[in-house]
Amino acid sequence: VPVLVGITDTSFVESIKIAEFSNKHGVSAVVLAPPYYFPTAQPELLEYLQNLVPKLPLPLFMYNMPSCTKVFFEPQTVVEASQIPGIIGLKDSSGNMVYFHKLVSMLSDKKDFALFTGPEELLAETILLGGHGGIPGGANLFPKLYVDLYNAAAAGEIKKVRELHKKVILISTTIYSIGRHNSSFLKGVKCSLNLMDICSDFTEEPFHCFNEPERKKIEAYLKQFKNGFN
Amino acid sequence: VPVLVGITDTSFVESIKIAEFSNKHGVSAVVLAPPYYFPTAQPELLEYLQNLVPKLPLPLFMYNMPSCTKVFFEPQTVVEASQIPGIIGLKDSSGNMVYFHKLVSMLSDKKDFALFTGPEELLAETILLGGHGGIPGGANLFPKLYVDLYNAAAAGEIKKVRELHKKVILISTTIYSIGRHNSSFLKGVKCSLNLMDICSDFTEEPFHCFNEPERKKIEAYLKQFKNGFN
Repeated sequence: VPVLVGITDTSFVESIKIAEFSNKHGVSAVVLAPPYYFPTAQPELLEYLQNLVPKLPLPLFMYNMPSCTKVFFEPQTVVEASQIPGIIGLKDSSGNMVYFHKLVSMLSDKKDFALFTGPEELLAETILLGGHGGIPGGANLFPKLYVDLYNAAAAGEIKKVRELHKKVILISTTIYSIGRHNSSFLKGVKCSLNLMDICSDFTEEPFHCFNEPERKKIEAYLKQFKNGFN
Repeated sequence: VPVLVGITDTSFVESIKIAEFSNKHGVSAVVLAPPYYFPTAQPELLEYLQNLVPKLPLPLFMYNMPSCTKVFFEPQTVVEASQIPGIIGLKDSSGNMVYFHKLVSMLSDKKDFALFTGPEELLAETILLGGHGGIPGGANLFPKLYVDLYNAAAAGEIKKVRELHKKVILISTTIYSIGRHNSSFLKGVKCSLNLMDICSDFTEEPFHCFNEPERKKIEAYLKQFKNGFN
């Protein structure tokens, strides 16, 4: 499978360094959100892409993640960025489907530019209505579910889409909804992966992995889903 | 003069490294805003401080900068953080004086904890109403103006405060208001410092220094202020 590596950084040279390192290790493309400390205006953001992308050894996916970066890649900026050689698509994690549908429409002539969404709760409508893919966190846990959903949506099999979409929402309202903070999603995925013996649930500061009570809840959900989802 | 160095980072170990480097080079204290990518909840932020501060070789000033970090150090979090040995104060750049006055009130018994504001437009009311200091960007350009304003406000000389405050607002509405974006302030200060032969006006990506037309405007303002402000 292709591997894409995030190079988002507030430091221009660090982004280039991570891209060069990735290139040496067989990575397919890199992913970049806007610099996320001092907020940029759209002309500054476009100029930044124009200056950065020619210095990268790999194709670039833009990453719209305003809950972390504060700054949207606004639609007109995306259209202009799509003309920069080396930029091959955008992943939108804003959760704002009005924004996403606008992008799909404004870039409909640009066949080599891919539009993905992040939140898996939006994968069904993304593919049903002209988007090209999704980057669902839950695919780390139940890959078949999300591949099946993609295929059903791409084929327009609405009955099957509705059935699989319900399962996606069930994961979202259980495994990702333990704990009280925004970080519940991160902790839920990591804890599940650890319970499935895929990796450690270590979470870097300022976050921490779930304690035993939350872990028990996740374990119970995973048992419940075991046969249905994978 | 004491020198304070920013150690804000999304990486825990990088913050520690910058603090250790600073300590080796005679710095007085370090300054920390919340990690600024994935947003933290208040209990996570407090735990982060509790884990980080004991690892630092220097006293720490908290930095409330929600326009860049998205996350406030909420008043109750500041009260609890003020109990952590090594934390000596907070600089508030939110521009929200309701928040700041609450902090002054809630920490009035804690005589060894300093409360500063960032925006120089708020220095007068900060000192008049119980705050301990300010970190005005404009003090790089016209240090005497801000020292005089501080002294007048601390002495309660309201007539002099009003007169100096007007000059501060004049700087804000001229030098910092050229250009259309949030970055106007950064560019205005850097361009002025360069015109005064103090340092280069280089601005790291994604920002750039002012071009000649904006530079000419700043030059004209600096000439106009020359006798009155320094």
